[in-house]
Amino acid sequence: MALSALFLNCTLKKSPETSNTEAFIGVARKMFAELQVATKSLRLADYNIAMGNTSNEGDADQWPEILEQIKQHDMLVIASPIWRGDRSSVAKVVAERLDGIWEETDDKGQYPTYNKVGGVMIDGNEDGAKKAIASILFDLSEQGFSIPVNAFSYYVGKAGPGPAYIEAGGNRHLFTNKMLYNMVYNMTHLAQILQQNPYPADLNELTQKAKKISDTSD
Amino acid sequence: MALSALFLNCTLKKSPETSNTEAFIGVARKMFAELQVATKSLRLADYNIAMGNTSNEGDADQWPEILEQIKQHDMLVIASPIWRGDRSSVAKVVAERLDGIWEETDDKGQYPTYNKVGGVMIDGNEDGAKKAIASILFDLSEQGFSIPVNAFSYYVGKAGPGPAYIEAGGNRHLFTNKMLYNMVYNMTHLAQILQQNPYPADLNELTQKAKKISDTSD
Amino acid sequence: MALSALFLNCTLKKSPETSNTEAFIGVARKMFAELQVATKSLRLADYNIAMGNTSNEGDADQWPEILEQIKQHDMLVIASPIWRGDRSSVAKVVAERLDGIWEETDDKGQYPTYNKVGGVMIDGNEDGAKKAIASILFDLSEQGFSIPVNAFSYYVGKAGPGPAYIEAGGNRHLFTNKMLYNMVYNMTHLAQILQQNPYPADLNELTQKAKKISDTSD
Amino acid sequence: MALSALFLNCTLKKSPETSNTEAFIGVARKMFAELQVATKSLRLADYNIAMGNTSNEGDADQWPEILEQIKQHDMLVIASPIWRGDRSSVAKVVAERLDGIWEETDDKGQYPTYNKVGGVMIDGNEDGAKKAIASILFDLSEQGFSIPVNAFSYYVGKAGPGPAYIEAGGNRHLFTNKMLYNMVYNMTHLAQILQQNPYPADLNELTQKAKKISDTSD
Repeated sequence: MALSALFLNCTLKKSPETSNTEAFIGVARKMFAELQVATKSLRLADYNIAMGNTSNEGDADQWPEILEQIKQHDMLVIASPIWRGDRSSVAKVVAERLDGIWEETDDKGQYPTYNKVGGVMIDGNEDGAKKAIASILFDLSEQGFSIPVNAFSYYVGKAGPGPAYIEAGGNRHLFTNKMLYNMVYNMTHLAQILQQNPYPADLNELTQKAKKISDTSD
Repeated sequence: MALSALFLNCTLKKSPETSNTEAFIGVARKMFAELQVATKSLRLADYNIAMGNTSNEGDADQWPEILEQIKQHDMLVIASPIWRGDRSSVAKVVAERLDGIWEETDDKGQYPTYNKVGGVMIDGNEDGAKKAIASILFDLSEQGFSIPVNAFSYYVGKAGPGPAYIEAGGNRHLFTNKMLYNMVYNMTHLAQILQQNPYPADLNELTQKAKKISDTSD
Repeated sequence: MALSALFLNCTLKKSPETSNTEAFIGVARKMFAELQVATKSLRLADYNIAMGNTSNEGDADQWPEILEQIKQHDMLVIASPIWRGDRSSVAKVVAERLDGIWEETDDKGQYPTYNKVGGVMIDGNEDGAKKAIASILFDLSEQGFSIPVNAFSYYVGKAGPGPAYIEAGGNRHLFTNKMLYNMVYNMTHLAQILQQNPYPADLNELTQKAKKISDTSD
Repeated sequence: MALSALFLNCTLKKSPETSNTEAFIGVARKMFAELQVATKSLRLADYNIAMGNTSNEGDADQWPEILEQIKQHDMLVIASPIWRGDRSSVAKVVAERLDGIWEETDDKGQYPTYNKVGGVMIDGNEDGAKKAIASILFDLSEQGFSIPVNAFSYYVGKAGPGPAYIEAGGNRHLFTNKMLYNMVYNMTHLAQILQQNPYPADLNELTQKAKKISDTSD
């Protein structure tokens, strides 16, 4: 039962500019490789992704191919740099576009991301990681993903302008690497047991039950 | 394999004042009962809980008995009213005190909440639920809990002062009840499969691996 | 001494699609008109605004003309719809691009937005306004703007999918209109007294003083 | 026209335990002294402050004397340590209790904090400052305070456990001291011009105007 993880690199910078977030992702990919988990990383700034909240915003929109990759992997890691103490605008676009997933439901009312596992990686020269992580975990949980214990890792430096992940040697920062190992190992375990034991919930049936109590409660 | 869920009611009001949050919890408890999950709800404002960030802040502090209850249940639901567009100060105290859990580790370095499942319920007369949920999910994931898909429910009314959950008939609000059923069913499934398949991660070993790459990366 | 206010409409939708945020802005513009304040509204989705964190991201980038408009007005209102319980990605792009302002300083080290006044308007069918406002106020304060008391207004409906501002009759929602009047009147007063009494701070001198205490503190 | 500033130290620790936040406040007080601004700092953990959202929660509640101090000063600085990537629970209690201010209005409908100026100081060993600042600025603006440009300062270190403000030499961190000077100078200027030119808005009248457009808009 081979597992796979997709990283969405939410840097603002297009290739070939150096991406600190990609360097951080590189460390995580090696850790996944230790567990025989196949990985892929997509640098979203290199795609033409429309703003919007559906799964297809027209001809030039490349979100459909990103979404297809999300569907084909068992795990999703949103990896974002910090700008203005928060996730990047690219990461916010991802959150907005993923709302389109709710339109595609199977006969249980579950959408294609159900039973997948999510994680978050944030890097910045300073403050903002935890705010970004919190917002992204909220989105992931509502958009189909389960979140393991220790589902994230981040690197930030001291207050103020300063070296970013690569220059600061973030790949040698023990705390960041510990969190990253925890995230990788726990995501993989959760993906494995969810693949073997998918959520049985029939959401259509639960909606009927909810209607019943909404109508009869006093 | 009987499962159990603990609710921490984070209202600011002591008994016997009416708690909207307790009414909301009541609906969730009935849903858990459908799945044979035993539930208990603790109204924290009725306890003397010291501010601090350890598991025991002195003689008068009743957090130790709250923490003991957390340990004895498989699932934890943080239920908070909204004040100032955010979780209540009581809910923030819970988050701060739970940091003490990191001091108690087993031979794998896992703390007592590892392999438990978390959820969030937020009620208010208006805006603030999603901000509160996001912060709490972040805390839960770092403090040992796993988060299922659709791990939360909330009730809020229109902008401005207005009726709270009970007066507004929140127990008849379909959207809130649908989310709540999803939360209850998915938390229970996740708790079940984690009980059968606990996280194998040896955190001490992962720390060693992290040290190794932190020392040797260039 | 004529004053002027610029609105940046951060809807995700391009013209001619109906924008709830634009309808909300329309109410504010009428209020400003009562005070003889000239207003302009720019719908950013109709511009080609590059992601990035400088004031000019290349030939096709239309941010420079938006920035020019910001400079030419005394007040700035960021008006954003709610998506995912937070400001829109367009509003996040604005925040990121405004960081470029720090590169342009006068002989006191003040940047072109210094002595301008900021406000926030948020609309959505449900929850998320206060989180969005908080993040935007933080950005505005760091990026040169002063914030009056009651510097914002918002419209949100009950939890769950539901009518947005126009369909819900947000323009008749008393709480929203009260906040909006407060915002408009207080922004105008603050802009007026700041125009007459600009911040005297010489930021270069303050940096020297900061260096001195940073070097000599023990 | 003598001005004064009150600091509310929101540390979780009671005296005589060392408070990093108090050390940080000490630096700000010296800067205010350069401008002949009188300062006072209250360490809230040493008071018995009830949770609630009114201005008086019963006999043992010491919030009334804190509130009295707020009224007697021209400026208010909320100074909080970071816990769980957010402001402390003590700082959240302050925000909740300040809602009581709305009950006390003068003949213009303005409450006692109107025309006062607010600022924020956050210290922590790592990440969380900007999230805390954003939430507090939102509260301050709604609760009567005006916010100058550069209305805050913070100190945070690298990701993970590490030295807090005192041990880390935060008082020698140039970026933090620069922000602090800006905050102190700009708060003082804004307080001065607001004292000379208070907000003229008659909030009762604005409510009538809001009612009128709420009734007649179509």
